[in-house]
Amino acid sequence: MTRQIGILVSGSEILDGRVLDTNSHLITERLTDLGYKIRHSVSCGDTFEDLENSLNFLLTRVDGVVLSGGMGPTGDDLTRDFLAQRAGVVLVQNMQALEELRALYERRKRVFDPTNSKQTFFPEGAEIIRNPVGTAPGFMIQLQSGNHVVPVFALPGVPVELERMLIDGVIPLLSKCFGPPLGIAQRRAMKIFGLPESVIGERVASSNPPSDLIVSYRATFPEVHVVLKSPSLDYPRERLNEAFEAAKARIGTEFIFAEDLRISFEQSVHTLLTDGRKTVAVAESCTGGLLGSLLTNLPGSSAYFKGGILSYSNEVKETLLHVAKAALEQHGAVSYQVACAMASGARDAVRADYAISITGIAGPDGGTEEKPVGTFFVGIADARCTTSYHCFLSGSRSRVRRYAAFTALDILRRKLLGLPIPFTSYVAD
Amino acid sequence: MTRQIGILVSGSEILDGRVLDTNSHLITERLTDLGYKIRHSVSCGDTFEDLENSLNFLLTRVDGVVLSGGMGPTGDDLTRDFLAQRAGVVLVQNMQALEELRALYERRKRVFDPTNSKQTFFPEGAEIIRNPVGTAPGFMIQLQSGNHVVPVFALPGVPVELERMLIDGVIPLLSKCFGPPLGIAQRRAMKIFGLPESVIGERVASSNPPSDLIVSYRATFPEVHVVLKSPSLDYPRERLNEAFEAAKARIGTEFIFAEDLRISFEQSVHTLLTDGRKTVAVAESCTGGLLGSLLTNLPGSSAYFKGGILSYSNEVKETLLHVAKAALEQHGAVSYQVACAMASGARDAVRADYAISITGIAGPDGGTEEKPVGTFFVGIADARCTTSYHCFLSGSRSRVRRYAAFTALDILRRKLLGLPIPFTSYVAD
Repeated sequence: MTRQIGILVSGSEILDGRVLDTNSHLITERLTDLGYKIRHSVSCGDTFEDLENSLNFLLTRVDGVVLSGGMGPTGDDLTRDFLAQRAGVVLVQNMQALEELRALYERRKRVFDPTNSKQTFFPEGAEIIRNPVGTAPGFMIQLQSGNHVVPVFALPGVPVELERMLIDGVIPLLSKCFGPPLGIAQRRAMKIFGLPESVIGERVASSNPPSDLIVSYRATFPEVHVVLKSPSLDYPRERLNEAFEAAKARIGTEFIFAEDLRISFEQSVHTLLTDGRKTVAVAESCTGGLLGSLLTNLPGSSAYFKGGILSYSNEVKETLLHVAKAALEQHGAVSYQVACAMASGARDAVRADYAISITGIAGPDGGTEEKPVGTFFVGIADARCTTSYHCFLSGSRSRVRRYAAFTALDILRRKLLGLPIPFTSYVAD
Repeated sequence: MTRQIGILVSGSEILDGRVLDTNSHLITERLTDLGYKIRHSVSCGDTFEDLENSLNFLLTRVDGVVLSGGMGPTGDDLTRDFLAQRAGVVLVQNMQALEELRALYERRKRVFDPTNSKQTFFPEGAEIIRNPVGTAPGFMIQLQSGNHVVPVFALPGVPVELERMLIDGVIPLLSKCFGPPLGIAQRRAMKIFGLPESVIGERVASSNPPSDLIVSYRATFPEVHVVLKSPSLDYPRERLNEAFEAAKARIGTEFIFAEDLRISFEQSVHTLLTDGRKTVAVAESCTGGLLGSLLTNLPGSSAYFKGGILSYSNEVKETLLHVAKAALEQHGAVSYQVACAMASGARDAVRADYAISITGIAGPDGGTEEKPVGTFFVGIADARCTTSYHCFLSGSRSRVRRYAAFTALDILRRKLLGLPIPFTSYVAD
């Protein structure tokens, strides 16, 4: 039986526009994955009346409520008092919680402020949910609604604390109340770079996935993530796998850089470089360091990243990368020829297996008819040859820069994997 | 009289975790700025029952409801039918809306699909809200609740369409229903770098702001933003300004880089460099390009940013920055001495007025007792001298890197403004 859960987000900072509520989404993602259904999410201000109205609305409609916020030490924090009053019990201090709070202050080398001990009081009979990452513990209390009893889980509103306590505390308690969860729905995921969402959508549709599979798309620029999810736990795994492979083939496997949502784009390149024991250097113009920054995002990047040159001005292109003045004058700084010269210059200066260069027009000014804003060239040099590619994205300065850095990484990824590179190319002499 | 507004977000994509609801926040921000109060926000799935329950909950508590979602052409889109049924009227087609929809298809060079004409039907008597950016228009309908009448505004769930229609359609209609809005509350804001939120909170509190002012904090790492907002429009401006100045003085004006929430940290430095006609070079180790990337975020940065060297390996520190091998061996790559040598090496190589360097241990490995993970040194060289600073932040790799890049920019900012630099320093010979 699917259990219905309601979410109550308390806090005037949500309702006066100061803070975007992300907790509802976080709770929703975690619980729906286990087979619970979120029926409603309600947010309300920090008053007894609004809390009461919202909770009553939920209690008649759901099997359990997760409440976030109002657990801090200040006068605005009403959750404890409200739920005790609603349950008809008093607040009692929990000595273990007090001890843990004092210990936390000691570890953080801060003086314990007695007003914080408010956070160690709980409605009598409540089950305490420990907070391993912050000061306010949560709790579960059973509330009467008509003739059934509904567990209410009160958690602090700080997202990182809430998430941890949801996993360590609420989910086990939900199992205790309702029996083991129906289980995680089956899913397969892929992360794609280099195709627009609309094209991916058409290609997936043309692979004719079974109509009972749920296909969802998420664009986090410049990546698109596609998830195929089974409608139920007992869905045949083989059917899901077949649909997934068919979709992949239509999209083009070379555009898929990961089949695990936890693997970032730079991580896919990181693994290739580490496994292949290759080293890399960069020469960046319009991205100004974004490519180097991506290449050093992950620990262990010193195994492959040697360094590079930010040649934002033509002067630096000439002095540090030895790009010929003639090439700059004849072809312009944003050209096949200069991209190649930058890459081979960086490879010489830094002595790496590969050097990648980016030169482009990030905008909003500087475009011409022939080379509009969003035009960029990526060069790549190795021991054998130096090639450059003509790329383009229409968009804001920050999108062009981000897309250019990703494209450069993707060209390296494709080169390391021996895949085709889908851009017009030029090979230096 | 403050009008209370309820928000109803309809859509199973919210409640099954596929999509994060940002519409509630968007509606909240726009309407609270005009003096409306958001009483509740409720989300529910695409069923008549859930829509009915949620709407009834809101109607008894608010003066107006903004409903988002369920306005598309598919079978899941129930908002039109639901609100017509709730109002006891039929749906009627609006010929002007149909014409506009056909024209939109023509402009987009797509064949008009007759199933889309569902979007041109509205509850009889509803006032239509045009959609200049998408296919589904919205509408306002007056619903009876007990013995008062509540306007309900139905809008599509696509954020960019919703925002435009809120501004062009809903806000004028709200004025028509309730009279002109109370107006925008008075506020003063400051953006701070270099102090933790808790310290800022204590300092603001010690400035004793009037208890009727609303003080809010928002931490977007590594910045903290503080906003002082008047509780009402007729609040004395002078009283707000005095409180603002008192808070600034307690915090320390040198930590405040902007008094306008729209100005980014890099923009504050951008303006100083542009106005002062100074040029900059960088030498980055652990940040791998993040500092250069920040310095080139804004258009026009070529006026001051010349370029730099990413010296991730010691080899590159020696070959391109001419850091002495002896300094690397004697003091280590993460030291006052190497930070200074990197800065002066970059200044020589790139020929800029200032060169800034960063060398540090971003982690998670590589720390020692003397130089734990999170230790970094920032060097700065100009025509007269080269100085380096010892800095530290405990945190994840990405936080340490981001904080290091911001700290380097802040040291430059303070140098350009002639402000004290709050770190232990070392001056190179």
